[in-house]
Amino acid sequence: MEPKVMIILGSASDFNVAEKSINILEILGISYDVRVASAHRTHEKVKKIVEESTANGVEVFIGIAGLSAHLPGIIAANTHKPVVGVPVSVKLGGLDALFATVQMPVGAPVATVGIDRGENGAILAAQMVGIHDVHVRTKLSKMRREFFFKIKKDEEKLAEKLT
Amino acid sequence: MEPKVMIILGSASDFNVAEKSINILEILGISYDVRVASAHRTHEKVKKIVEESTANGVEVFIGIAGLSAHLPGIIAANTHKPVVGVPVSVKLGGLDALFATVQMPVGAPVATVGIDRGENGAILAAQMVGIHDVHVRTKLSKMRREFFFKIKKDEEKLAEKLT
Amino acid sequence: MEPKVMIILGSASDFNVAEKSINILEILGISYDVRVASAHRTHEKVKKIVEESTANGVEVFIGIAGLSAHLPGIIAANTHKPVVGVPVSVKLGGLDALFATVQMPVGAPVATVGIDRGENGAILAAQMVGIHDVHVRTKLSKMRREFFFKIKKDEEKLAEKLT
Amino acid sequence: MEPKVMIILGSASDFNVAEKSINILEILGISYDVRVASAHRTHEKVKKIVEESTANGVEVFIGIAGLSAHLPGIIAANTHKPVVGVPVSVKLGGLDALFATVQMPVGAPVATVGIDRGENGAILAAQMVGIHDVHVRTKLSKMRREFFFKIKKDEEKLAEKLT
Amino acid sequence: MEPKVMIILGSASDFNVAEKSINILEILGISYDVRVASAHRTHEKVKKIVEESTANGVEVFIGIAGLSAHLPGIIAANTHKPVVGVPVSVKLGGLDALFATVQMPVGAPVATVGIDRGENGAILAAQMVGIHDVHVRTKLSKMRREFFFKIKKDEEKLAEKLT
Amino acid sequence: MEPKVMIILGSASDFNVAEKSINILEILGISYDVRVASAHRTHEKVKKIVEESTANGVEVFIGIAGLSAHLPGIIAANTHKPVVGVPVSVKLGGLDALFATVQMPVGAPVATVGIDRGENGAILAAQMVGIHDVHVRTKLSKMRREFFFKIKKDEEKLAEKLT
Amino acid sequence: MEPKVMIILGSASDFNVAEKSINILEILGISYDVRVASAHRTHEKVKKIVEESTANGVEVFIGIAGLSAHLPGIIAANTHKPVVGVPVSVKLGGLDALFATVQMPVGAPVATVGIDRGENGAILAAQMVGIHDVHVRTKLSKMRREFFFKIKKDEEKLAEKLT
Amino acid sequence: MEPKVMIILGSASDFNVAEKSINILEILGISYDVRVASAHRTHEKVKKIVEESTANGVEVFIGIAGLSAHLPGIIAANTHKPVVGVPVSVKLGGLDALFATVQMPVGAPVATVGIDRGENGAILAAQMVGIHDVHVRTKLSKMRREFFFKIKKDEEKLAEKLT
Repeated sequence: MEPKVMIILGSASDFNVAEKSINILEILGISYDVRVASAHRTHEKVKKIVEESTANGVEVFIGIAGLSAHLPGIIAANTHKPVVGVPVSVKLGGLDALFATVQMPVGAPVATVGIDRGENGAILAAQMVGIHDVHVRTKLSKMRREFFFKIKKDEEKLAEKLT
Repeated sequence: MEPKVMIILGSASDFNVAEKSINILEILGISYDVRVASAHRTHEKVKKIVEESTANGVEVFIGIAGLSAHLPGIIAANTHKPVVGVPVSVKLGGLDALFATVQMPVGAPVATVGIDRGENGAILAAQMVGIHDVHVRTKLSKMRREFFFKIKKDEEKLAEKLT
Repeated sequence: MEPKVMIILGSASDFNVAEKSINILEILGISYDVRVASAHRTHEKVKKIVEESTANGVEVFIGIAGLSAHLPGIIAANTHKPVVGVPVSVKLGGLDALFATVQMPVGAPVATVGIDRGENGAILAAQMVGIHDVHVRTKLSKMRREFFFKIKKDEEKLAEKLT
Repeated sequence: MEPKVMIILGSASDFNVAEKSINILEILGISYDVRVASAHRTHEKVKKIVEESTANGVEVFIGIAGLSAHLPGIIAANTHKPVVGVPVSVKLGGLDALFATVQMPVGAPVATVGIDRGENGAILAAQMVGIHDVHVRTKLSKMRREFFFKIKKDEEKLAEKLT
Repeated sequence: MEPKVMIILGSASDFNVAEKSINILEILGISYDVRVASAHRTHEKVKKIVEESTANGVEVFIGIAGLSAHLPGIIAANTHKPVVGVPVSVKLGGLDALFATVQMPVGAPVATVGIDRGENGAILAAQMVGIHDVHVRTKLSKMRREFFFKIKKDEEKLAEKLT
Repeated sequence: MEPKVMIILGSASDFNVAEKSINILEILGISYDVRVASAHRTHEKVKKIVEESTANGVEVFIGIAGLSAHLPGIIAANTHKPVVGVPVSVKLGGLDALFATVQMPVGAPVATVGIDRGENGAILAAQMVGIHDVHVRTKLSKMRREFFFKIKKDEEKLAEKLT
Repeated sequence: MEPKVMIILGSASDFNVAEKSINILEILGISYDVRVASAHRTHEKVKKIVEESTANGVEVFIGIAGLSAHLPGIIAANTHKPVVGVPVSVKLGGLDALFATVQMPVGAPVATVGIDRGENGAILAAQMVGIHDVHVRTKLSKMRREFFFKIKKDEEKLAEKLT
Repeated sequence: MEPKVMIILGSASDFNVAEKSINILEILGISYDVRVASAHRTHEKVKKIVEESTANGVEVFIGIAGLSAHLPGIIAANTHKPVVGVPVSVKLGGLDALFATVQMPVGAPVATVGIDRGENGAILAAQMVGIHDVHVRTKLSKMRREFFFKIKKDEEKLAEKLT
C-alpha cells in the first residue's frame, strides 16, 4: 500500500529537519515514505517519484530543502496534489530557502511552513489528510490537548522556580 | 450548504488580493465565502467564524493579511482544518507579513504562499479540496494546460516581435 | 492583591528573556506575576488571563515571544491596558519576532522594545506604572544613577588597563 | 495647564505621520502639544522641551523620526516618563528608523510602534494615560467598538459587491 | 544553424529585461534565440529546449526569471554548458530572485549577474563565447572603448553644466 | 605553460573557500594557479596578474573575497575573459560580499555563485573551459553521475536507518 | 590652484546626488572639482585623477556610486587622503551600495555617509578641511545656526497650522 | 597636552573593537584618549567630553557603539570636528548599529566604517589628521607597504602549501 505522505529531502544533510516531520507522522499514525533526491542533481528521479506517488495515491508531498531550495517547487510542477515546503537554514539564516520556497509563480503554489520547522510540515500535511479522515483529526486534537497540558506543566515548573 | 473554502480578510483594504483568490475559485467551481475580520480588532468574530465554519464542513481556510499579519495564525489556532496564509505587502515589501504568517510555532502551521499571491492561495486550497474530489483535480489539470497554452502564445507573439 | 505587571511568555523556552524583566521588577519593587501561554496553542487561556488581570487592576502587560510572535498582539486585542512586547531571537536573529510584534494594525498597538531586551520591557512597564507612582519614579532615578556609576567604574578599570 | 502628551517631530517633513497621532488624540479628548526639534541639529532644544515637560506634568512623550531616528532615544535619555517612538519611512522602507528606535540599550527603552504608524503611537500613549483615567479608557473602548462597526460595514459593502 | 546563446524567459513579463540582453548580442553580432518557458508551468518544455540546444551546439544559456526564480537552476540541471542567470525584480526588490538564482547547491552553478541586469547577462555570455572567438573579443573591446568614450562625453556635458 | 584557470584570493583568510575550488579543479584535471592579492591593498598587483594571465591564455578567472568584495569586479575591469566571483561570509552572513560581487554596473559582469560556494565557482569555470574542451565536459558528466550515485547511497543509508 | 575637495561620480546618472554635495560646498566656499569615472569601465582614469589630485593638494575625496559601488574603495586604494563615500540607491533601496561602500577591509577605509545623502558627504568633507581651517569651521557653525533657525520657523508654521 | 584623537565607547563591552583602533593609533604614533560614555545613560557626560575635547584641540572623534548606536550621532551633534563611527555587532549581525550610525540627517554626518572594524576607524582618523601632518602620512604609507609585504608572504606560504 502506498503511504499517504511522501517526504522528499533535497540532501541527506537535511535529515535532522525531516526527522521532526517523521516523529509527528509516527505519533499521528499516518503512513509515509522518505526519499533523497536533489532538484538539480537527480532531477529525473524527483519527477519519477512524484509521478508514481501521485498515481499511487499519495495525498500530500513534503519537500525539505535549503539554499536556493527548488525541490518543493519541482515537486509542485509535477503533481496536482498539495506540496508542503520546509525551508532549511544553511546560509543567511534560511532566508534564501524561505524566499525560494514561498515566492512561487501563479499556478504552482508551495504550502510553506517556518524555517527548519519540520514538525509543522507534518502537522500541515496531517491537516490536509484529515479533511476526509476523522481518525487523523481526532489524533490532531489529542496532540493539541497534549501541547496545552505541556504548557500547563511548564508554567507549574516555572511557578515553583519563582517561589 | 456551507462553502468548501472560507476566505477571511484582515481588512477591507486587502480585497484586491482576495479578488485574485476569488477569480480562481470561480474558474474551478469551488464554493467559497468571504469575510472581513481583524485578528486584533474583531477577535471574537474571527473565532466565531472559524468554529462555525469548521463545524459546518468548510474544508480549507484562506487568511489574507498584511503587516504583523496574525490573522492566519489565529484561524489556525481555532481549527484543525488546514489554513492557507497570503501575506499582503503594506510595508517593507510585505516581508513583515511573510515572516508573521510563516514563522508559526510548533502545532499551528499556516500554509504560506507568496506575497500578494492570492491566486496561489486559492490554487493551494483547491489542491487540498482536490485530494478527495476528482472533479476539482480535473479542473486543476485543465487550468494548468491553459497556462501552458498561454505561455505558448506568449512565445509566438514574442517570435513575431523579434522577426 | 493583584500584581501591577503581568508577564506572559509564549513558551517556557523564553524564560531566559523573562528573567531579565523579573530582575528589574524585583529591584524596583513592583509586584508582578508570570504565566506561560501560547497565542496559538492555548489561546483561550491567554484571553482569560488578560481579561481577569485587566479586571483585577493589572496596569501593564509584558508579552514575550519569538518567531511569528503573535502573543503581545493577542494580549493587546483583549485589553485597553498598555502592552509591552519583547521579541525573542529564535530564527533570523529575531527579525521575524520584531516585525510580528511591532507592525500592528491601527487600534491595537504593542509597545515594542529591542530583541531579547527583557530588562527594557520591565523598565518601560515601570515607567508606565510610574506615571502616577512617585515611589517607582524615585527608584527608576536611583537605578539610572547606578548605571551612571557603573559606567564610571568601567571607565576607571579601562583607564588602569590602558596605563 | 500642561498637556498630557507631548509630540516631538524630528523634522517638519514628518508632519503627515504626526497628523495621524493628532487626529486620534483629538478624538480621545487628550490634551497634547506638538514641537519640531532635531536630535542632532537642535539638541539643546530637545533636552529643554523634555525637562520642562517632565517637570510640568506631561505623562507620555511621542517621538516621531526617520532615518537614524535618534530623537525618541534622546527624549528617553532625559526623562523617566514613558516615551513612544514612531519610526518614519524615508529610506530602506523605514527599516533604518525602526532599528534605531527599538534597539535601545538597557536603561532607556523606547515604546516602539509600527513604521509610519502615527495612530498607534497616540493610542498607546492614550492607554498609558488611561491607566489612571477611566474617562480615557471609556473613550478607547468606544473607539474600538467603532472600529468593529466599521469592519462590519466594510464586510456588508463587500457582500453587496460580491452578489 | 544553431545560435550560440539561448535566452529563456520564465514569463513573457520578463521581456523588458531580456530586451537588454538582446540589444547587446545584436551589437556584438552573436547569434541567439529567445524562448518563453516556465520552470514550474511548462517544465517539460524547458528540459526539451535545453537538451536539444545543448546537442545542437548552443554554447551558453541565459535564464531570466523573477520571484522564486527556479528557471536558471532547472536549465543548469539539464546541461553541462554554462548557464547565466538574471534575477528579475517583481517583489522584495528582486532579493527573492537573486537568492533563488545564486544560492545553488554544489554541482549545478548558475553564473548570476545583477538584478534586472540583462545587459550584463549578455556580456558575460559573450565573454564565455569569446574564450575561443577572437572576433567576439575584439567586439567586446570595442564596446568597452565606447563606454569609455560615453563617460568622457558625460563628463564634458557635466563640465559645461557646472560652468 | 599557463594554467586555464587563475584563482585570486582577496586575503589568505579566504583560503578555506579557495580550497573547495582547488579540489574540484584537481578532480577535473584542469590546470590552475592561486594568488593572494587585495583589490584595495595591493591593487597594482591584481592588475598585473590579470593582464599577464589574460595575455598568456588563462581562460577564466575566479575571484574569492568577503566584505565589500571588490576583487572580482577589479579583475573584470582588467580583462575580457569571464570572471567568476565567490562571495565569502565574514560579516552579515556574506550578504555584503554577495551584493558587492553581483550588483556590477553594465559592462563588467561578474559570474557570481553562492556564498562560500567555492566548489561551484570551479564547476562554473570548468563549464566555461568545457565549451570547447570535450575532455572537460566528459569529466563533468562523470562528476555529476558520481553525485547521483552518492545521493543514491545516502538514501539507502537513510532507508536502513528508518527500518 | 587645485581644489580642496575632489568629487568623483561613478556615472553621470549619479549627478542628482552630487548636486547636493556641490550646493553645500558652494555655501561653505570650499573649492572643488567634479569628475565622472567608473571604477570598472574607466579604471585607469580613476587612478590618474586620484594620484594627480593627491599630488596637487586635494585634501578630501568624495566618491559617489550605486550598486556594487566600488568607486570610493578604488579611490581609497590610490591615496592616503581621506575618502568620503556616498552610496546611491539604484536597486534594493541602496543597501547594495551601502554595504559595498562601508564594509571595506582593513587598510582602506571609506568614510561612508547615508544613502543618497550628498549633503552630508560635503559637510563631512568640510569638517575634515576645517580641522586646520578656522574659516571653514566658522561657516559650518553659521550653517548649523541656520538649520536651527529653519527648524524654529518650521515649528512656528506648524503652530499656526494647528491653531 | 590634548590627544589628537578621542575615542568614546558606548559601553565597556565594546572594548574589543576599540582595542583594534588603539593598536593602529599606537603604531602610527598618534596621541589618543579613551572614554566610556553612553549616549542614553550618561548623556551629559558625552556632551561635556565632546565640548571640552573640541575646545582643547582634539582633531577627530571616534564613536564606537552597537544596537541603536546613537553615540556617534550625539558626538556629531556637539562638535564641528569630524566624527568617525564604528558600528558594533550585538544583534542582527550589527545591521541595526550600521543603519543607526550611517543614516544621519542633513547637517550631522558620521564617517561610518565597517561593522566591528575598529582598525579602519583609526586609519580613517589618521588620514584626517594626516591632511596637515606629513609625519602621519609617511607612517600610513609605511603601514600600507607592510600590508603589501604581509600579503606577499601569505602568498608564498600558500605556494609552499600547494606544492
